[in-house]
Amino acid sequence: MRKFLYSVYSFASVLMLMNFSGCKPKSAGDATGSDAAGKVYVAPGKYDEMYNFVSGGFSGQVSVYGIPSGRLLRVIPVFSVDPEKGWGYSEETKPMLNTSHGEIPWGDQHHLDLSQTNGEIDGRWLFANENNTPRVARIDLKTFRTAEIIEIPNSAGNHSSPFITENTEYVVAGTRFSVPLDNDNGDVPISSYKKNFKGTLSFISVAPKDGEMKLAFQLLLPGMNFDLSHSGKGPSGGWFFFSCYNSEQAHTLLEVNASKRDKDYILAVNWKKAEEYVKQGKGKKIKANYVHNKYSESTHNATSTNEKETIVLDVKDFPDLVYMIPCPKSPHGCDVDPTGEYIVGSGKLAALIPVFSFSKIQKAIANKTYDGAYGGIPVLKYEAALYGEVKKPGLGPLHTEFDGKGNAYTTFFISSEIVKWNIKDLKILDRQPTYYSPGHLTIAGGNTKKPYGKYLIAYNKITKDRFLPTGPELAQSAQLFDISGDKMKLLLDYPTIGEPHYAQMAPASLISKNSQKIFKLEENKNPYVTMGEKNSKVVREGNKVHVYMTAMRSHFSPDNIEGIQVGDEVYFHVTNLEQDWDVPHGFGVKGNINAELLVMPGETSTLKWVPKKAGIFPFYCTDFCSALHQEMQGYVRVSPKGSNVPLTFSLGKNSEAADEALKK
Amino acid sequence: MRKFLYSVYSFASVLMLMNFSGCKPKSAGDATGSDAAGKVYVAPGKYDEMYNFVSGGFSGQVSVYGIPSGRLLRVIPVFSVDPEKGWGYSEETKPMLNTSHGEIPWGDQHHLDLSQTNGEIDGRWLFANENNTPRVARIDLKTFRTAEIIEIPNSAGNHSSPFITENTEYVVAGTRFSVPLDNDNGDVPISSYKKNFKGTLSFISVAPKDGEMKLAFQLLLPGMNFDLSHSGKGPSGGWFFFSCYNSEQAHTLLEVNASKRDKDYILAVNWKKAEEYVKQGKGKKIKANYVHNKYSESTHNATSTNEKETIVLDVKDFPDLVYMIPCPKSPHGCDVDPTGEYIVGSGKLAALIPVFSFSKIQKAIANKTYDGAYGGIPVLKYEAALYGEVKKPGLGPLHTEFDGKGNAYTTFFISSEIVKWNIKDLKILDRQPTYYSPGHLTIAGGNTKKPYGKYLIAYNKITKDRFLPTGPELAQSAQLFDISGDKMKLLLDYPTIGEPHYAQMAPASLISKNSQKIFKLEENKNPYVTMGEKNSKVVREGNKVHVYMTAMRSHFSPDNIEGIQVGDEVYFHVTNLEQDWDVPHGFGVKGNINAELLVMPGETSTLKWVPKKAGIFPFYCTDFCSALHQEMQGYVRVSPKGSNVPLTFSLGKNSEAADEALKK
Repeated sequence: MRKFLYSVYSFASVLMLMNFSGCKPKSAGDATGSDAAGKVYVAPGKYDEMYNFVSGGFSGQVSVYGIPSGRLLRVIPVFSVDPEKGWGYSEETKPMLNTSHGEIPWGDQHHLDLSQTNGEIDGRWLFANENNTPRVARIDLKTFRTAEIIEIPNSAGNHSSPFITENTEYVVAGTRFSVPLDNDNGDVPISSYKKNFKGTLSFISVAPKDGEMKLAFQLLLPGMNFDLSHSGKGPSGGWFFFSCYNSEQAHTLLEVNASKRDKDYILAVNWKKAEEYVKQGKGKKIKANYVHNKYSESTHNATSTNEKETIVLDVKDFPDLVYMIPCPKSPHGCDVDPTGEYIVGSGKLAALIPVFSFSKIQKAIANKTYDGAYGGIPVLKYEAALYGEVKKPGLGPLHTEFDGKGNAYTTFFISSEIVKWNIKDLKILDRQPTYYSPGHLTIAGGNTKKPYGKYLIAYNKITKDRFLPTGPELAQSAQLFDISGDKMKLLLDYPTIGEPHYAQMAPASLISKNSQKIFKLEENKNPYVTMGEKNSKVVREGNKVHVYMTAMRSHFSPDNIEGIQVGDEVYFHVTNLEQDWDVPHGFGVKGNINAELLVMPGETSTLKWVPKKAGIFPFYCTDFCSALHQEMQGYVRVSPKGSNVPLTFSLGKNSEAADEALKK
Repeated sequence: MRKFLYSVYSFASVLMLMNFSGCKPKSAGDATGSDAAGKVYVAPGKYDEMYNFVSGGFSGQVSVYGIPSGRLLRVIPVFSVDPEKGWGYSEETKPMLNTSHGEIPWGDQHHLDLSQTNGEIDGRWLFANENNTPRVARIDLKTFRTAEIIEIPNSAGNHSSPFITENTEYVVAGTRFSVPLDNDNGDVPISSYKKNFKGTLSFISVAPKDGEMKLAFQLLLPGMNFDLSHSGKGPSGGWFFFSCYNSEQAHTLLEVNASKRDKDYILAVNWKKAEEYVKQGKGKKIKANYVHNKYSESTHNATSTNEKETIVLDVKDFPDLVYMIPCPKSPHGCDVDPTGEYIVGSGKLAALIPVFSFSKIQKAIANKTYDGAYGGIPVLKYEAALYGEVKKPGLGPLHTEFDGKGNAYTTFFISSEIVKWNIKDLKILDRQPTYYSPGHLTIAGGNTKKPYGKYLIAYNKITKDRFLPTGPELAQSAQLFDISGDKMKLLLDYPTIGEPHYAQMAPASLISKNSQKIFKLEENKNPYVTMGEKNSKVVREGNKVHVYMTAMRSHFSPDNIEGIQVGDEVYFHVTNLEQDWDVPHGFGVKGNINAELLVMPGETSTLKWVPKKAGIFPFYCTDFCSALHQEMQGYVRVSPKGSNVPLTFSLGKNSEAADEALKK
């Protein structure tokens, strides 16, 4: 046994290393330079064909790229603070990073899913998971801003998330690490894993009209690690599939101890049935403590709500809810083809790819073709669920997407390649090397009923020598392939932000049709909005000072403020009065142990400042806005606590009035 | 007078707006698609020709691009926290963001300058300024990491910085906003600006061997706004030139009140002379309070020192130190050509570009060809300093760089173009539109004695419709031009990070020759390093718990820890034992109100965690490192305060020993 363990361990280690000895820059393989150059070049003034939404991994944010150029169009702050945009620093956005553990400035953002209607991308929302402190975010594609974040109780490492059902009825969230439930005593020995640690799969409903999320129910499972998931579609639309590993239930050195069994599982979850049970009042309401944060576009303000309970269905009490399908070996990716019939499991230590058949799974369930049970859950016979196996596909299969023409594309981490194969006959059609070790890949609509094909992007985990060196730390690398022909052609390498795990891609028109250019000032319902310069003012309420400030090319109003005292809580409520696209104003004040504001046209945003010493503190516009941007500044005079300097301020537009006010 | 003011105001406003009514995507202008495509395409596996270091503006960081591809190779965290990399969150990096106001998570990073030897780029360091809370950073180009940050006292808005002398003897820092000196009583009326507000130009020496910075001296000037600067070179190498505006000394509505005078000034500063005076013990030592932060590569640890004084030379007492050259109108850019003879002032409201002659300036000084004095400083006669004027160049000139072939390139914000002109005959040779409203531009070595030509990049302030829309907030846009021929050719548009102000560009080999791939483990002098898994351990010291942890593909040691109590200060000191390029490990723990760690091979980094509730908390590697990355995890058991659960831990590598340890 010891020897076997060792062999597993060294197998992986050796394979891991073998790609990287003495590696040197390699040239473009199949693609000819000028051909590829023409295919990725987007001339100045022209638009990219597709949007590519890419997870930021340990950056916690979401990146938006244009394809085929590979240009980074925007980083959307989601789970991490972003001093650049004031995300998590402005009073309005602070609540968005609230959790039951307090305000957390960082997240680990792994996967994305675009909202769908009838199994097709509808361009409304983008969902994003947070792996470390389990959360799911909804990004509004009108504004490309995070609109909502919901925490997931009874969960740790929200990895198999935020995948959605084909009409965006639910977003799922499966725990990567099993842990004691929040409601139980968590102060238990780690060695009591099998007894005390539980797995949960969470189903979050999404309101069809405005996208609002709600934790609908959680399925309770034995302690294991849940990895990835995808919804069924068409005939399998009422089902969800989750991969799991560590069915060994190890709690230490998983590298060895969770790689013992030849097969772990893919879980087939009948979510329609679960929904029925919940409607019937089944399941248990248990105490939970999690936070739900919403950003209102009309008030430009976030609120945070503490939620108190959750509905849990213990699957061993509902024998027709979940079935387990054996899958070799430590499955990672779990992908459903556009027809909904084929489910591809990618065992990261397996030397083949099993393709399961939804109709055979249904038959096996009907006939109870079981191979025992796991933690009270029926295990289907492998052969009874299997459509067939892709033989010798490569080493370390991780993820599969589809082109809508009957082909599947799988990444291989260890053998560092992408393999194209036919879903029906399971024959390998092409293989192309990637540099180096791809994790996920994406094709536009490649996980929906309607893939758009044309491009495939591989997200590589190891970069080494692909770009000019930048010291010990390198950006991760993406590779764009043309998949319009029989053979994949490598077009472009480009570096990325954070660690891209999963990504989504969509034809540009599906997204840009909804894009909003400004916030209308007259619709601004922020309680601290200043509607026009003449209404700008400074108001003291005890030790709180509210500065109702406007920003307009090229001045703030007020721009000189006196009568602030050390220790005051000063709130700069900055309203950007512009009503023209792409005229943000910024706001920064010297020595603030906070960040800045970046305020879009029509928006109000608030920066809190507690001056610690007396003196003159300048503030200024931080975003070059006009030819006289360098003149867009002001001063605050801070006096010692208890000073009798009266509160005065100058209205920026009228310098004489300003001087008069200051002289008083 | 009132009418005149209004006309200035509306002139700028109208010009500002005129470019943007009904603007639509425009195509590539001069460049033909396929030609340009071939020129910017860098085939997979090939390297870019040049490094381009770009300021992040309100992001506070520095971006590194490859040129001609425009690919973002790395974001270097400098003045803002970066949850992605743990910058400002790891115990080792926290001191780097320290200031006299406390720890500040955000900065406004405007300008960059590469270190020079004999006026040429030497590839050792990159200097970066912080505008909001005045600071200068030095980035080490071996590691592409911030090595040092020094705060500037008596300053507010450190804008004309961090420009260097031709042998990197000094980095300068001029105050954008004048303020009372730190040592004076700052609680004064803002309307007493002329009396109480002072300007300072700071000279920071750079140690030739290791680059260590030291505030050498400050020049005291009347209150004004100082904008930009550049060192002389060759014959003018002992001089530094600074632009200033608001010589009106306005303190409110500068948009109007600082645009009254026809001319402001360029200051010619004899820094060699100032250095002599300081060596002679002249100048005043005054109290100051500023912070100096250094990161040690051997300990992987930053320290922060409080400095207590500064040497100030009041320039009115040293009549041969500084001369003022009248310059129309609110000058912004202040640029010196490669020969050192010509100084170009860009008055942002001027309708011409004055070119000053260093030899004429010297003659005017020798002959005292003065036009009075300003605040006790001699003002040279405009004509006596002037080489000539570029007539009708465009509207809103901002910045000029040089190609080393006798040509200058100036950006025009208002007329939205780049204009190429000959330095000698001041004739305009070419003009190309930019989309829209460029601020700075860069050419490789374009501000040194040795420009490399070939490419020019314009950094545009307004983006509008240049890329697929991303809601109200758009990335700013850069445009790459080929300047190898007589006419500039637009090659590529690409979006950028934050707001690029100034940038630097250099041929790749100048930088990459020094690039370091790993940190040698045997040279790691971090006090909490763990040299090998067998030395990993957990040590309690009162309520502090030190976890000496190792990370290696694919496990942590220890990986199970018990005996932690609510309220403990837990320090995870993670040493990455890998010694191979591009194998970082990450570290995150559930529910931590802190960020994560990203630990490079051979490095030790520390995350502080104060658990708030009892339970089981998983931790894991946040950077996909191997085929068994998903298994690289562990658990911490947190018990209530005062619990008698003993401190135990499992060594990751040996699961039996781990279990034994946990059973004790």
